[in-house]
Amino acid sequence: MASPAVPDIVVGRLPLYLRALAEMRDEGKEITSSQELGDRLGISSAQIRKDLSQFGEFGKQGTGYNISYLRDQLSQILHVDRIWEVILVGAGDLGRAIAHYGGFVDRGFKIIAVYDNDPAKIGQRIGDFVIRDVTHMTKEIREGNIRIALLAVPSKAAQQTTEELLAAGIRAILCYAPTSISVPDGVHVQYIDPVLHLQRMTYYTLDQ
Amino acid sequence: MASPAVPDIVVGRLPLYLRALAEMRDEGKEITSSQELGDRLGISSAQIRKDLSQFGEFGKQGTGYNISYLRDQLSQILHVDRIWEVILVGAGDLGRAIAHYGGFVDRGFKIIAVYDNDPAKIGQRIGDFVIRDVTHMTKEIREGNIRIALLAVPSKAAQQTTEELLAAGIRAILCYAPTSISVPDGVHVQYIDPVLHLQRMTYYTLDQ
Repeated sequence: MASPAVPDIVVGRLPLYLRALAEMRDEGKEITSSQELGDRLGISSAQIRKDLSQFGEFGKQGTGYNISYLRDQLSQILHVDRIWEVILVGAGDLGRAIAHYGGFVDRGFKIIAVYDNDPAKIGQRIGDFVIRDVTHMTKEIREGNIRIALLAVPSKAAQQTTEELLAAGIRAILCYAPTSISVPDGVHVQYIDPVLHLQRMTYYTLDQ
Repeated sequence: MASPAVPDIVVGRLPLYLRALAEMRDEGKEITSSQELGDRLGISSAQIRKDLSQFGEFGKQGTGYNISYLRDQLSQILHVDRIWEVILVGAGDLGRAIAHYGGFVDRGFKIIAVYDNDPAKIGQRIGDFVIRDVTHMTKEIREGNIRIALLAVPSKAAQQTTEELLAAGIRAILCYAPTSISVPDGVHVQYIDPVLHLQRMTYYTLDQ
């Protein structure tokens, strides 16, 4: 594991920095500062400098950061200076939206297969994909040496599907099912559950 | 703002606890422990006890937590012992998936309107909703005293739409556009961007 001493909350901010740098590049900018990055992200410039200093020296006092260089460095640190092939399990409404989402491949990820267990869906198309039979999933994950899965099955199927993914060699799961899944140490799970985010905001009184 | 001393990272875990408690209730359980909650969530029991202790005394040593009681308390703390009416802006693939998602209302949120600016979409149906003209959005947010918006517009439209939402009185935005939006202090933003989560996992070497 690279830089085990870096807190996960810092790691979690690096993708935000990378996303903002890509936007700046698209806007034709070449140089930025921790102040400008911070203004864009709603994060203090001191926090950004402190976060980046955990990984090296990326800019000079007074001259700021070279956007292209910092972007390359962060891509390497996050291991997205390559394309990760990922699979998607579940071809319901949400799975369809994920499969249609065009924003993965520019940022290090490419969906290579979509699986479902519904005979009415298997063989149907979603964009460029033909939905595959989930019974072939384990074999295809192994053959492709795939490490990352997007899980968009119903909650009640989430743990069982997770077991199958783990047995096939998956090491990281982005879980869209609104439920917690159990995985052993060394396997990574992140959740996409809009209600978790909404409740985190309603904690702070919104009627003020 | 309630309990300003509680770190936001602790606030961010409360919805996970609430979700797990709702699942346990659905499974017919009445009592749980920090150990059982922790096993389900992949969080240490000590962390859970510490987090909950910031808000009060919810269980007794040796007898555990009454699930229904703790669930009620957490719902109150997160202000989801009511239903928040929310609006959705953007009726593309992602907006459609969000509008179809059935998991909001049980957990404190109800989508009451879906807006788009595309004449070909306005007037079309998504499930129970008729897509409304975004030009009426500001007036309807004000009349309904709506505080929360789900933002599923393209990245290039995100900031402009945000300005309109803020002017209309929105105080919390769940942003599905893969870009950062600027808001003033006191307005809350959370992001749903799958790539941010994926990159957070690829930081940790997955090929080990």
